[in-house]
Amino acid sequence: MSTPDPRGLGPGAMLGILGGGQLARMMALAAADLGIRTHVFAPDADSPAFDIAARHTIGAYEDEAALASFADAVDLVTYEFENVPHATAAFLAARTPLHPGARALALTQDRLSEKSFVAGLGLAVAPFRAVDSLADLERAVAELGRPSVLKTRRFGYDGKGQVKIAPDTDLAEAYEAIGHFPAILEGFVAFSREVSVVAARNADSAFAAFDVCENEHRDHILAFTHVPARLGAATAAAAIEAARKIGEALGYIGVFAVEMFVVGEGEREEVIVNEIAPRVHNSGHWTSEGAETSQFHQHVRAVCGLPLGSTTRRGIVEMENLIGEAALRWREILAEPGAHLHLYGKRDARPGRKMGHVTRLKAER
Amino acid sequence: MSTPDPRGLGPGAMLGILGGGQLARMMALAAADLGIRTHVFAPDADSPAFDIAARHTIGAYEDEAALASFADAVDLVTYEFENVPHATAAFLAARTPLHPGARALALTQDRLSEKSFVAGLGLAVAPFRAVDSLADLERAVAELGRPSVLKTRRFGYDGKGQVKIAPDTDLAEAYEAIGHFPAILEGFVAFSREVSVVAARNADSAFAAFDVCENEHRDHILAFTHVPARLGAATAAAAIEAARKIGEALGYIGVFAVEMFVVGEGEREEVIVNEIAPRVHNSGHWTSEGAETSQFHQHVRAVCGLPLGSTTRRGIVEMENLIGEAALRWREILAEPGAHLHLYGKRDARPGRKMGHVTRLKAER
Repeated sequence: MSTPDPRGLGPGAMLGILGGGQLARMMALAAADLGIRTHVFAPDADSPAFDIAARHTIGAYEDEAALASFADAVDLVTYEFENVPHATAAFLAARTPLHPGARALALTQDRLSEKSFVAGLGLAVAPFRAVDSLADLERAVAELGRPSVLKTRRFGYDGKGQVKIAPDTDLAEAYEAIGHFPAILEGFVAFSREVSVVAARNADSAFAAFDVCENEHRDHILAFTHVPARLGAATAAAAIEAARKIGEALGYIGVFAVEMFVVGEGEREEVIVNEIAPRVHNSGHWTSEGAETSQFHQHVRAVCGLPLGSTTRRGIVEMENLIGEAALRWREILAEPGAHLHLYGKRDARPGRKMGHVTRLKAER
Repeated sequence: MSTPDPRGLGPGAMLGILGGGQLARMMALAAADLGIRTHVFAPDADSPAFDIAARHTIGAYEDEAALASFADAVDLVTYEFENVPHATAAFLAARTPLHPGARALALTQDRLSEKSFVAGLGLAVAPFRAVDSLADLERAVAELGRPSVLKTRRFGYDGKGQVKIAPDTDLAEAYEAIGHFPAILEGFVAFSREVSVVAARNADSAFAAFDVCENEHRDHILAFTHVPARLGAATAAAAIEAARKIGEALGYIGVFAVEMFVVGEGEREEVIVNEIAPRVHNSGHWTSEGAETSQFHQHVRAVCGLPLGSTTRRGIVEMENLIGEAALRWREILAEPGAHLHLYGKRDARPGRKMGHVTRLKAER
């Protein structure tokens, strides 16, 4: 967990990245600004990040020979996705520094551990119950009521691996639908909006959060982020403090996101922690032009043991995800004043696929 | 000179870049933001741009077989340096669109043609005379006086290929020093400062200039750029109009820079055109964070037939070149609020070598 040079990895270093999607690609672009080269490891020969990386390895995450060569060729490994298999993380961590560390991965890969951890820090979370059987589910629904949400403990994202328990939902069917996997039931939270805190922490325990942003989902996929979030100053400060506590308790190194629900109003407004993502995050894409330092630059700084950059916001910011064919509007967007287009170099604009994003900046009112 | 798609080259296109230095590298980074892949052609296996490009070819600019494969593999060729050999440009232009075009190259490779062209547009230039012999030089010095500067017509940059003719300079020695090459003598201009206009023009004849910047050289190498330049509003407008005229007369496509001297004061302040660079330019590096669109993004937009981006400046900007060992200050710079570090991935910090740059932003006063 230490870098070879106590001053941090600098120019000429080789940063290893697991995963070859848009997050890895934007990390590689940020690393390049700092003179740091990247080696991307991903199973898919068509990975968008390969086009930017100095080196790449096409390999399965279970291929120990490929992982060993990769570890030998880099100074440090980071990743773009939280579902890095435990064995992969452990194998790499034994050979080279891995940031964020295996603990953050293990914890956030299991909704039950994650929720228990957050609750243990004294932070508000939705009521939850472990569900390992249909009987557990029946008891949990009796306790938490309907509506509620049944989620697999592991490997769910963007709305996959979860079922809403509505007043008329048959519990046996719901349990069937998530494949009988270990799960949790989460009680309904009457939230007014979803926000997130994207923050960074480095090996010197420095912490820096970007302004709280507000997220608008469509079909369980992030569609827009608006910054700043419509939130009282005290609530915004509490949200950032929650992220700080989480980062500190994890001994976290890198950028992470904490998704939260906003409940109540006025004096009673508060945030409820929903999920931790141990990586750069779609809800932080607005920082590319919207903040002094982008989340990608910040992540590279944090994992390489460098000083964190300023998180000062540059104005009122909107980030729009370009999903599927929305990316075909690229030329219009290029002609739009104040719009900054980012495309990920993916070949097919399949429905639901994140093809790019746009950030739009307006001067502060 | 036309692109295959009348809407311009878009996502997935392959942009060819001649030259593998920092300018090519930053173009490749900008292209990546727009989902455009790059193929860099350069003779040096250690080229900094190779680390960013999806493809690269190590080849001599005279290697026609390598150039032909390169031309076949890309949708368009651009370049990072003005000294592309004429035969190389012609060979490529016969096979694929080349932007900026061969005319801009030919003109700016010859100081005599360049000065005559600019003067022909009715723009102010320093007095000059062609020098093809020692007798020419003697006559020219008699006419333009001392001090003056003897420069080779072709292939000089950063102070190479030029000799100052001081009161005590022996003319035969001076002519010897520049190797008896065809040359021009330029009369002395008592300028108060050097400024440049970095601007872009696309195939639709759209023109967009960044704000005039002021350049501070040390040892004939750009050390600092300050934006805005200390210049009257009318003079700044005249400087931009001069660039517009030059771009239009060349039918130019891409980003270019016009270096100018400022003479006179107050009502009598004016700019004198010194040099045209048919490429992105060191004096435009401040745009990376200092303007809404960086010169690299703007160049990619222009050569790919896309709408030009906004050139709005984001504040008071300073760009510092990191020359040689100055780049060893990278960690300090990373810790400096408001500073944005760019390193070029060059391995050896040799004296005089451009290793990176920093942009510093301050709010408008």
